[in-house]
Amino acid sequence: MAVWRIQTRRRCVLSRLRVHSFSVSIDGFGAGPSQDLEHPLGVGGPELVDWFFHTRTFQRMHGTGEGDPGVDDELSAQGFENIGAWILGRNMFGPVRGPWPDESWRGWWGDEPPYHTPVFVLTHYPRAPISMKGGTEFRFVTEGIEAALAQAKEAAGEKDVRLGGGVATIRQYLSARLIDELHLAISPVVLGQGEHLLNGLDLRALGYACTSHIAGGRAAAHVVLQKRG
Amino acid sequence: MAVWRIQTRRRCVLSRLRVHSFSVSIDGFGAGPSQDLEHPLGVGGPELVDWFFHTRTFQRMHGTGEGDPGVDDELSAQGFENIGAWILGRNMFGPVRGPWPDESWRGWWGDEPPYHTPVFVLTHYPRAPISMKGGTEFRFVTEGIEAALAQAKEAAGEKDVRLGGGVATIRQYLSARLIDELHLAISPVVLGQGEHLLNGLDLRALGYACTSHIAGGRAAAHVVLQKRG
Repeated sequence: MAVWRIQTRRRCVLSRLRVHSFSVSIDGFGAGPSQDLEHPLGVGGPELVDWFFHTRTFQRMHGTGEGDPGVDDELSAQGFENIGAWILGRNMFGPVRGPWPDESWRGWWGDEPPYHTPVFVLTHYPRAPISMKGGTEFRFVTEGIEAALAQAKEAAGEKDVRLGGGVATIRQYLSARLIDELHLAISPVVLGQGEHLLNGLDLRALGYACTSHIAGGRAAAHVVLQKRG
Repeated sequence: MAVWRIQTRRRCVLSRLRVHSFSVSIDGFGAGPSQDLEHPLGVGGPELVDWFFHTRTFQRMHGTGEGDPGVDDELSAQGFENIGAWILGRNMFGPVRGPWPDESWRGWWGDEPPYHTPVFVLTHYPRAPISMKGGTEFRFVTEGIEAALAQAKEAAGEKDVRLGGGVATIRQYLSARLIDELHLAISPVVLGQGEHLLNGLDLRALGYACTSHIAGGRAAAHVVLQKRG
């Protein structure tokens, strides 16, 4: 039912589910092993996103420097255009696993997270919404990925929904053919271990094809996959 | 014993085992599924090497056109420099499986293959060497990858040995830490199925790191992995 509603709305307003600037290693990992509070991207994970840390887009959101312009920055910035809601996996929101012990964890991003929209966090454990500075509101969805997408599209109106990750969440949405556009940044590193983004997913059978690629600056390449039809 | 001999020789002459221009898809496949006589690269495999077909290097070896110059071509050409011997897996040499039924299969490449050196073909089934036009001699090695490397280095003298593939053969040599330099061309395609080049190999633990990357033309990116130490 939720799917039917989504598709109906898509025909009207063409709101899409987009993944942007998601970094993978040459050997295909989207996060390093052993994620925890000290290693939100897993061990070795920061090397994956090194290209993004240096962009003007990142530095203006979180950094202290000016950051570099260029193709890495342009593509980073595009990922924030026309986005009316976000979806995040639970582990992207924080290191807490299992039932919420209290209300203290409010994301990795301080008082003013960089989303400025409703952010739908997938979890098995209900929690009241959290309003943050700058328009970000974390809303916790326990009914699964399709329900989260329906709610996010409703909140986004005619804008698109951005899926922030992490790996497990993107894999679920890919398997369900719910992602319309997936921009991967291939980082010039090998991780050897971690969470593999695409293993066991037959992207071609799922209807995805590479529609564009562009050389990165610090990233080795940016590639865009889109769902056909 | 073979390994010890190889390492001793390497300290003297620095002959290296190199992989060049090996194409992988965005989802990590180095060949499509269902390889046979009609599909030497597997179904979908030609898309993987489309970038190479268009190079001047390829067209001058096998084609009818002039081919394109540029970075894809330059890197293709580098793969043929200072090479004194090649190693190929059995399935790279041809579609015949099991014992050789006769002497009729002489490779995919016609009377004058593009190697112009001794080519050591890994196989479980002995066969007499085959001399081809232009200096290529196919020699069949039944004693395993280390023996093939020792024989190839002996034949190459002070030059390097190039490992042509395929996927299973590169995986064996990587696992044994015998490859010194691995140039991968990431093609802007997804295959979904086929032979995955790196799954289950912990490249970082094996001592490999990405040492350079450069934007491709038709390829999305070229990356070079080297063994440390």
